[in-house]
Amino acid sequence: MSNVYTSAPQAYHFPLLIKQLLNRSRQTSSTQEILYADKKRFTYAELFNRINKLANVLADLKLEKGDVVAVMDWDSHRYLESYFAIPMSELIIQTVNIRLSPEKILYTINHAKPKVLLLNSEFAPLVKNYQFENSSIEHIIWLDDNGVSSEGVFGGNQSRVVGEYEALLESASTEFDFPDFDENTIACTFYTSGTTGNPKGVFFSHRQLVLHALTEAASLGCLPPKQGLSYGDVYMPMTPMFHVLAWGFPFTATMVGLKQVYPGRYAPDVLMNLIKSEKVSLTHCVPTILQMLLKEAQSRNETFDGLKMIIGGSRLTEGLAKAALAQDIEVYTGYGMSETAPLISLTDFSLNEPAMTEEEDIQRRCMTGKPVLMVDAQIWNESGESLPHDNEQTGELVLRSPWLTQSYFKNPDAGEELWEGGYMHTQDIAKMRADGYITITDRLKDVIKSGGEWISSLEIETILSLHPAVADVSVIGVRDEKWGERPLAIIVLKPDHQDTQAKDIQAVAEQAAQKGMIPKYGVPEQYKFVTEMPKTSVGKHDKKAMREMYANQTEV
Amino acid sequence: MSNVYTSAPQAYHFPLLIKQLLNRSRQTSSTQEILYADKKRFTYAELFNRINKLANVLADLKLEKGDVVAVMDWDSHRYLESYFAIPMSELIIQTVNIRLSPEKILYTINHAKPKVLLLNSEFAPLVKNYQFENSSIEHIIWLDDNGVSSEGVFGGNQSRVVGEYEALLESASTEFDFPDFDENTIACTFYTSGTTGNPKGVFFSHRQLVLHALTEAASLGCLPPKQGLSYGDVYMPMTPMFHVLAWGFPFTATMVGLKQVYPGRYAPDVLMNLIKSEKVSLTHCVPTILQMLLKEAQSRNETFDGLKMIIGGSRLTEGLAKAALAQDIEVYTGYGMSETAPLISLTDFSLNEPAMTEEEDIQRRCMTGKPVLMVDAQIWNESGESLPHDNEQTGELVLRSPWLTQSYFKNPDAGEELWEGGYMHTQDIAKMRADGYITITDRLKDVIKSGGEWISSLEIETILSLHPAVADVSVIGVRDEKWGERPLAIIVLKPDHQDTQAKDIQAVAEQAAQKGMIPKYGVPEQYKFVTEMPKTSVGKHDKKAMREMYANQTEV
Repeated sequence: MSNVYTSAPQAYHFPLLIKQLLNRSRQTSSTQEILYADKKRFTYAELFNRINKLANVLADLKLEKGDVVAVMDWDSHRYLESYFAIPMSELIIQTVNIRLSPEKILYTINHAKPKVLLLNSEFAPLVKNYQFENSSIEHIIWLDDNGVSSEGVFGGNQSRVVGEYEALLESASTEFDFPDFDENTIACTFYTSGTTGNPKGVFFSHRQLVLHALTEAASLGCLPPKQGLSYGDVYMPMTPMFHVLAWGFPFTATMVGLKQVYPGRYAPDVLMNLIKSEKVSLTHCVPTILQMLLKEAQSRNETFDGLKMIIGGSRLTEGLAKAALAQDIEVYTGYGMSETAPLISLTDFSLNEPAMTEEEDIQRRCMTGKPVLMVDAQIWNESGESLPHDNEQTGELVLRSPWLTQSYFKNPDAGEELWEGGYMHTQDIAKMRADGYITITDRLKDVIKSGGEWISSLEIETILSLHPAVADVSVIGVRDEKWGERPLAIIVLKPDHQDTQAKDIQAVAEQAAQKGMIPKYGVPEQYKFVTEMPKTSVGKHDKKAMREMYANQTEV
Repeated sequence: MSNVYTSAPQAYHFPLLIKQLLNRSRQTSSTQEILYADKKRFTYAELFNRINKLANVLADLKLEKGDVVAVMDWDSHRYLESYFAIPMSELIIQTVNIRLSPEKILYTINHAKPKVLLLNSEFAPLVKNYQFENSSIEHIIWLDDNGVSSEGVFGGNQSRVVGEYEALLESASTEFDFPDFDENTIACTFYTSGTTGNPKGVFFSHRQLVLHALTEAASLGCLPPKQGLSYGDVYMPMTPMFHVLAWGFPFTATMVGLKQVYPGRYAPDVLMNLIKSEKVSLTHCVPTILQMLLKEAQSRNETFDGLKMIIGGSRLTEGLAKAALAQDIEVYTGYGMSETAPLISLTDFSLNEPAMTEEEDIQRRCMTGKPVLMVDAQIWNESGESLPHDNEQTGELVLRSPWLTQSYFKNPDAGEELWEGGYMHTQDIAKMRADGYITITDRLKDVIKSGGEWISSLEIETILSLHPAVADVSVIGVRDEKWGERPLAIIVLKPDHQDTQAKDIQAVAEQAAQKGMIPKYGVPEQYKFVTEMPKTSVGKHDKKAMREMYANQTEV
């Protein structure tokens, strides 16, 4: 007997293609709603027709299999339709991160080489001086919510404009027969907004996105009702659709057949209005958006009726989690990155769990969470050996799951580094508990290697930030003859504490070391007071710039 | 740009192998419990060790890849360990249906040709006269809960006995490195208990079982809390592990990391005791088991604390559903068959659903349910054309999903028929609602084709069973010169209604036709009173025998 089976001649092997995600909702959810802010509202039955129409519009452009179609839009029904119609047509969707600097946006476009650009009129200024003649872009589809015409926008390249999205769909046929093809075909690409060097392109196949959607539905579905996903939830993204596919949720929500709300450009009042009027019950965002929302709700004296919210991108602090819970948001943490499509871990909740204090409950919501189904997470030391999950030993978090980018676009060296040793390197330093809880302690490049030990810059920053005079603090490693590296604290003082001295702040670190919160060798001896913290274009501490400025100085 | 991606040299493609189902629970659930009735209780940490030990025991037998290892056991921890260790060793597990007649059991073994048999001592009488000399079975592993030794059981074949399961595991190493291999490798086989001809072997690959487990977790996870699966549930099968892999739940439960209870041979008092003492919250069974349980609970004056229970195998009647709900069982329907691994559809529940009456609620719990995620279900007429989902037109239910058997073992003709037209034929006649609800109206072979119309034998049976004199009824088609076929009702009368006449019973059918509950041409003119209904070995109406007895009679 052979151990790889022999199929009946007409047996359907069922490739894991994005079109299969529509199977259930096509049968069960034709009357379910999808809406784009206050601009458009239609049913799933219409969504399926519109996906077919968009596929017909693309087919008219006579593209080749594997051609890239780039989208620059706010979160909209158009984006959702593109998520399906483009890859289902055996093309690759490039979700352009319009939050990058203009040069980097153009870099990602020139690197991925799309033949078609779906362009929201609000981003037209960005491409005003773009050299279409020297670019891959042959066709432009104009997206517009404001009555802005594309006329005259593209000068000598006006002929590249195929038409306005809604008008094109209006005249397209609702019939389209999506073919079967290899499930390992690339479905999408997007670029990491890494702070060092040029953005790197990740890519995911149909198979990977289907497995991600199934696992996301299972992992969130198995959470208890207060936190988990259920039939009947109303979904709205608050992490943009260009950012790691809005965490894959538009695929998952469509597969499950949820009502979906796309809010356009994120403005706190619009988001809050939609949450209230459409009874949004499930969302995800970065802490900054949550802060904006809490402020908006406070000003209206409203709360959130148990809105389920997964926080990722930056660390959810305990203060913010507490504030969100107080306003009736069921807030918790998800972890992932561009390279991981992105879901890797989630806060764990369970039926009948042992009672915990409010503080314990908030703490777990702020941890990195437990690996979701199918994920193999390990902590590796510098020799690539797997460390025990004892919540003590820290090393690099490395991963296997069915949905990790298999390399970087046209960047095989970076891809090889990413997968060194057969596991995907996150560049995050972490420890794991015996029950699977991961705690990220630092970025690999930010960790300080001192006398053979690793010092977490994040941990030291957290401690120093407790000093009442500190407005902002960043800790980096600087070269040291004896120890290899030693921590340097770069500090912005509050306006009314400008006379604070290094020894005052060092005292806090010493106290923390005495209490065992940080190791003794983690106490910085060196302090640098600055008036402004160097930051990246997306507002994160620019440690690369700081290292360039300070790392080789022995005295600062 | 190629549209099938280029991986980094060391990138892990992540084959969908059964071993990957263990990834999450290995990290998160090492202290979770698994127990075998009152006989054994251990943790997941030990389960992982025991799976490795069993793999080492099998490795010592020097089998070849693709060899079959058959298991004959009640629901036990041993069975669970076999579900994993056998396929993870690139062998095929055959789950032997020990409820078949002895001849058919031996037929399935002689057909699948296992090299190893894991045999519970309670089934030893069955193999007493088995011709091991002429069989594929080279090794026997003895399973025993009653202190029964294998000594002398196998006569001249005693040397084939490798040892007793627990003793073998005791002395095996806990280290085993399960290899990667093609995800399309067959993992398991088992035989349908079809009432016609010899049992047919279905088979499923690693990929199929992984996708089934993920989709089962997602589909049950997305149900609201009262009906759905959540972390923290306690699982116990009440559909045997030899029967379509206990609906795949042992894989799903282990993947999710649930506490699991294996009850051994099903006895109502044991099942009830375990439900109560172990706080079982999720199970599945056929209606007969539910009836036994309700009776047991009544005799104890106990209820079930919201136990979630999926009914399949036979139709859940509204009376039984009502009785179960009254005893605090959250009962609903799942549909599938051996060929579908098995999950195809589930009763639908949703958050914030519109209010419904108790009657409406019970009705939907008894319907065949809505297709689960990824399933493409269609209703085909005899020409293979897809019919609209209008809840009117009936045809054969045909399927695509990622986990359908791709043929039958050594039976390519039956496999070709199964997959005619590229969809899997269920042989079930059904109609579908616009919201996806399926209603099975008949088995294809039982449908009565009269004057170009199809008459559902099930519908007519349901109506006739309403007559107070009817103890049991079966409706089959008999040859008719004018109409092709006409329905014949075969009836067992209640002891105290022996003088009831055909016209009395026909009156019920005529009333139902007047009310539009069945078509006019569905009223049988022919009635046959019998003292006992012909039944199959598993207790179902044997319509094949009835057709042989009556179908060609014009007067009965």
